[in-house]
Amino acid sequence: MTDSVFSRGCAWVNGEFVPIDQAAVPITDTGFTRSDVTYDVVSVWNGKFFRLDAHLDRFERNWNLMRMQPMLSRDEIRDVLHTCVAKSGLRDAYVEMIMTRGVPVGGSRDTRTFQNRFYAFAIPYVWIANPAMQAEGIDVAVATQVHRIPSTSVDPTVKNFQWGDLVRGLFEAYDRDAYTAILLDADGNVTEGPGFNVFAYCEGILLTPQSGILQGITRATILELAQSQGIACAIQQFDLSRLASADEIFLTSTAGGVMPISKLDGTMIGDGAPGPITLQLRELYWQAHDRADWSLAVNYTSDKLEFIT
Amino acid sequence: MTDSVFSRGCAWVNGEFVPIDQAAVPITDTGFTRSDVTYDVVSVWNGKFFRLDAHLDRFERNWNLMRMQPMLSRDEIRDVLHTCVAKSGLRDAYVEMIMTRGVPVGGSRDTRTFQNRFYAFAIPYVWIANPAMQAEGIDVAVATQVHRIPSTSVDPTVKNFQWGDLVRGLFEAYDRDAYTAILLDADGNVTEGPGFNVFAYCEGILLTPQSGILQGITRATILELAQSQGIACAIQQFDLSRLASADEIFLTSTAGGVMPISKLDGTMIGDGAPGPITLQLRELYWQAHDRADWSLAVNYTSDKLEFIT
Repeated sequence: MTDSVFSRGCAWVNGEFVPIDQAAVPITDTGFTRSDVTYDVVSVWNGKFFRLDAHLDRFERNWNLMRMQPMLSRDEIRDVLHTCVAKSGLRDAYVEMIMTRGVPVGGSRDTRTFQNRFYAFAIPYVWIANPAMQAEGIDVAVATQVHRIPSTSVDPTVKNFQWGDLVRGLFEAYDRDAYTAILLDADGNVTEGPGFNVFAYCEGILLTPQSGILQGITRATILELAQSQGIACAIQQFDLSRLASADEIFLTSTAGGVMPISKLDGTMIGDGAPGPITLQLRELYWQAHDRADWSLAVNYTSDKLEFIT
Repeated sequence: MTDSVFSRGCAWVNGEFVPIDQAAVPITDTGFTRSDVTYDVVSVWNGKFFRLDAHLDRFERNWNLMRMQPMLSRDEIRDVLHTCVAKSGLRDAYVEMIMTRGVPVGGSRDTRTFQNRFYAFAIPYVWIANPAMQAEGIDVAVATQVHRIPSTSVDPTVKNFQWGDLVRGLFEAYDRDAYTAILLDADGNVTEGPGFNVFAYCEGILLTPQSGILQGITRATILELAQSQGIACAIQQFDLSRLASADEIFLTSTAGGVMPISKLDGTMIGDGAPGPITLQLRELYWQAHDRADWSLAVNYTSDKLEFIT
């Protein structure tokens, strides 16, 4: 079923399926030269997409907010994603869909006239923190030298590649021997980090920031699962002192699920081992990948599918 | 001398010179997927680079601040730029040099381990506002719905592609029938716009913002030329009311030089025609392209140059 050239991943570029190593974006696409782009990432686990419709809903919302118009229908986009996974043959995959403003036409700088472009790819599942690291719990630093970009400048709910602040945070974390970074906003509220949302379990309540963040689908999933278990949840702003006093902290992302934090700024959280609420939610998260309403089997016979563009 | 395949532009990608239409960046380069990139743009006018060393100085400063390490020496980078222009045969060109963090290796997310990548291209000279528009003066809107990203989040002196705020401003300008937008910071200070710095001539003093902006080389050139003419200059923060009361306003960019503003938020600046200080500085700017210390003839015989990578 799988072509070996696609085994490292399969991309959809310019109306063709190509091996990931050959997939490229024109150097003049303003998706690159202005990061004028929105994207989404859905996982495939054990041969099934997880909450694909939720990801497509968000992606469609975001390309509309960016005033983009895809050349493919939503059904065609879904077909492309199936086929990228099918051609790769991957059972566990990281599947990215991207919409760019596109390439300037005939010297015009009027971005309204550009033909927007859709790209997609499936590669092996990406772990921000892999299972071995998750077993230990990860060390995180709270960045002191950079603030998360405010929503009044770039809307973090429109998933974007403008990671300048997050990358600065990441290098600060490296300098402090931490694995990754959590960023605060200019008012000192906890926001998010490079590719993940943040949860803190404090005195019996599961907290996660309300605004200034991506409204993550893993985040929404965890909130729903926690509520189903009778765990009290509060979606609200909170500061570093609240975070530092938490009994448990974990990160959530499509790329890794529920990731326990063992140390914050060099200090152990709880006893330094992943906490019981974190572990309970992580187990429920992976179990939820079999829920009929949240999963969709990849059509692995779609690997011969062809499109006209 | 010119290969026709390069007449629309020539790029340097993966160690090869390719026609601009074929030049592309790997879809997995974090220069795209995280906009983890810095760049610079130098012009070629009448067969000569303008202030190439100043652009290379800034580019080198910026890749160092981003903790990147190019595979080419600065001399090799200069040679690549000459050859991109030479192969294109262009006498007036927009020459871009780009350094990206690069492609993740072997599944690692540690960005310190990535091999940074250098790209470059020469295309026909780009005008943010072309000479016909400049003769009329352009209509600009001051964005009300978005603030420039603060320096505490992304350093605007490290030239970057994170244009989310600038593109929002641009769409607001379109909605208000303006051609482009000037952004304020959260404190109401004038900053810059998509691809340009801002100058206001107020009561005999030429003002330009001090911080929260790219330290443009065209901006520095204009300040030097103005001072040489005995025009008083002040590099300081100022707000919208000061801008709106200016006798003259103009924008500066490598892509277009000195661009007069005729209307701000629908109201004429001065009598609506480009003002005398603006026209004087624009003339000096173009004359300065012949200055021996600021210009460097393109080596058009370098079109056969080949590199090993």
